[in-house]
Amino acid sequence: MELHEESSCFCSSAAENYLIEKMNEIRLFSPATVANVSCGFDVMGFCLDSVGDEMVIRKTDKKGIRITHIEGFDLPYETEKNVSGVSALAMYDAIDVDFGFEIEIYKKIKPGSGIGSSAASAVGSVFGMNELLGRPFTKTQLTEFAIKGEALASKCEHADNLAPAIFGGFALVKSVSPLEILEIPAPDDLYATIIHPQIEIKTAESRALLPKEVALEDAITQWANFGSLVHGLHTGDFEVIKKSLHDVIVEPHRSRLIPYFDDVTKAAIDAGALGSGISGSGPSIFSLSKGEETAIDVKDAIEKIYSKTGIEFDMHVSKINTQGIKIL
Amino acid sequence: MELHEESSCFCSSAAENYLIEKMNEIRLFSPATVANVSCGFDVMGFCLDSVGDEMVIRKTDKKGIRITHIEGFDLPYETEKNVSGVSALAMYDAIDVDFGFEIEIYKKIKPGSGIGSSAASAVGSVFGMNELLGRPFTKTQLTEFAIKGEALASKCEHADNLAPAIFGGFALVKSVSPLEILEIPAPDDLYATIIHPQIEIKTAESRALLPKEVALEDAITQWANFGSLVHGLHTGDFEVIKKSLHDVIVEPHRSRLIPYFDDVTKAAIDAGALGSGISGSGPSIFSLSKGEETAIDVKDAIEKIYSKTGIEFDMHVSKINTQGIKIL
Repeated sequence: MELHEESSCFCSSAAENYLIEKMNEIRLFSPATVANVSCGFDVMGFCLDSVGDEMVIRKTDKKGIRITHIEGFDLPYETEKNVSGVSALAMYDAIDVDFGFEIEIYKKIKPGSGIGSSAASAVGSVFGMNELLGRPFTKTQLTEFAIKGEALASKCEHADNLAPAIFGGFALVKSVSPLEILEIPAPDDLYATIIHPQIEIKTAESRALLPKEVALEDAITQWANFGSLVHGLHTGDFEVIKKSLHDVIVEPHRSRLIPYFDDVTKAAIDAGALGSGISGSGPSIFSLSKGEETAIDVKDAIEKIYSKTGIEFDMHVSKINTQGIKIL
Repeated sequence: MELHEESSCFCSSAAENYLIEKMNEIRLFSPATVANVSCGFDVMGFCLDSVGDEMVIRKTDKKGIRITHIEGFDLPYETEKNVSGVSALAMYDAIDVDFGFEIEIYKKIKPGSGIGSSAASAVGSVFGMNELLGRPFTKTQLTEFAIKGEALASKCEHADNLAPAIFGGFALVKSVSPLEILEIPAPDDLYATIIHPQIEIKTAESRALLPKEVALEDAITQWANFGSLVHGLHTGDFEVIKKSLHDVIVEPHRSRLIPYFDDVTKAAIDAGALGSGISGSGPSIFSLSKGEETAIDVKDAIEKIYSKTGIEFDMHVSKINTQGIKIL
């Protein structure tokens, strides 16, 4: 199932493990994530620090999985119709226990914003259950369970939001079947700026814009850029990262669904960003910058443009979250 | 011209530099190289250690560039028709000196074998002249000059053999115009096994087999593999390198020009190779292995297959040459 041996999942001491096993309830921060990182379309994602859901996972005497509380957004309570519920059930089916779990969701990531709202839900339940069970599963196994929940929301099995939410940092999903995830290091002072224009992009419309075939020449440019991005992240070379953040395949088609996309990305670059791109399938746009100060300048520059458009929007500035989902 | 500052080209002390400047003649080893490293089609190459040309570059009172000796294979003496001559002229046009250069070529890499024969010629003259001039040019600039010679042989400007010949190791040619080359590290005990079946592949025929368009799905698989290969080389993770060495775009088309390609690659894997692929546009086939012993086992396994075919062939086993072209 895994590409190579994972070191013991979620570092902590045996004593801490024992304490967690004895706990009946856990409160989590389940982070937002950016998938489709420009030239890394469909294979790469990174994890945010300042945006995410909170969730409480609780052991109960009653067997089964129940969603007992939802705050923030209107989501279904039926376990089989709820993303968190479905991933939880996938894990629950793989274990044999005489107790059950309750899930409380304090949703802060807007569904449909393009920064991994469903992934955060899918990941939270399985991460929390794994903690309360004494961590029997690896991070890759947790991702496998979470894929089932993600599929309920996005109608296809993909892991480019789930993997960074669970592993933290930048994750390369080399393959979904079998699931192979590579953790790509990132320089310490890499920051993301996100704008979420509050428009709705219909998944079907976004999918329809994907070309079925692409020119070989463009594909070569894309893998040169993506190989270069991986190299730039490994070496912490911001100039290389900057020169790599170009998507010649998907962005030219999909960006037309996002109002003022070109203005935003130009303003971001002018303000010092390394590059920008569509977050997931949009409508959010991400920019990456060296240092928090530049990321804030980028936010200000984008805000200036969008505040004139009459479209409601949210913005976030976040350090790359190298830890991923965590206990609060 | 360069992606980022190169550290002073070709490490050596000031005293050594002074001695080289006073020298009038230099003998070089100009290495063979493997381009189109599987999923790195058109953007990556690596450098060999055990196969290469020897060349002598000599300062002369008479201005201009002359080819004065050719051994090994039948190549033109006219400077403008000789790959070494053309790259030498490109550099010569960029300098203003009152002397000239003579080039002697001891050709050991068979032209048309697919392991960078023309690149070795193109690189040798400009590297040698740069040494005798006291190294005014960076490695990237040398590659720029060599591209002119390479274009004479291959009818197009590409650098995926030149860059590894000059930089050594694995080189990612992120872009040709402007020329951007990234040096990708490789694990110490990575070895290549090469078979050169002595058949002729016509460049036109090989080009005609390249698809103009590729399925988006395949392109995504290719950049996942290529990003993963870059990660595997950075981390020295042989398992990741092994899982990455798949070309789903070009190999399925071009491999049919190489007799017994599938048998060779299967035998290589069975003997312990990490992966195989077409070297350049063939007919040579490369395999990569962990350790010299495995690379020799791979050679033996391939030899066993090819010795039954009636086709003449050469084989080489080589450590990855991390230095590139060097003074003898």
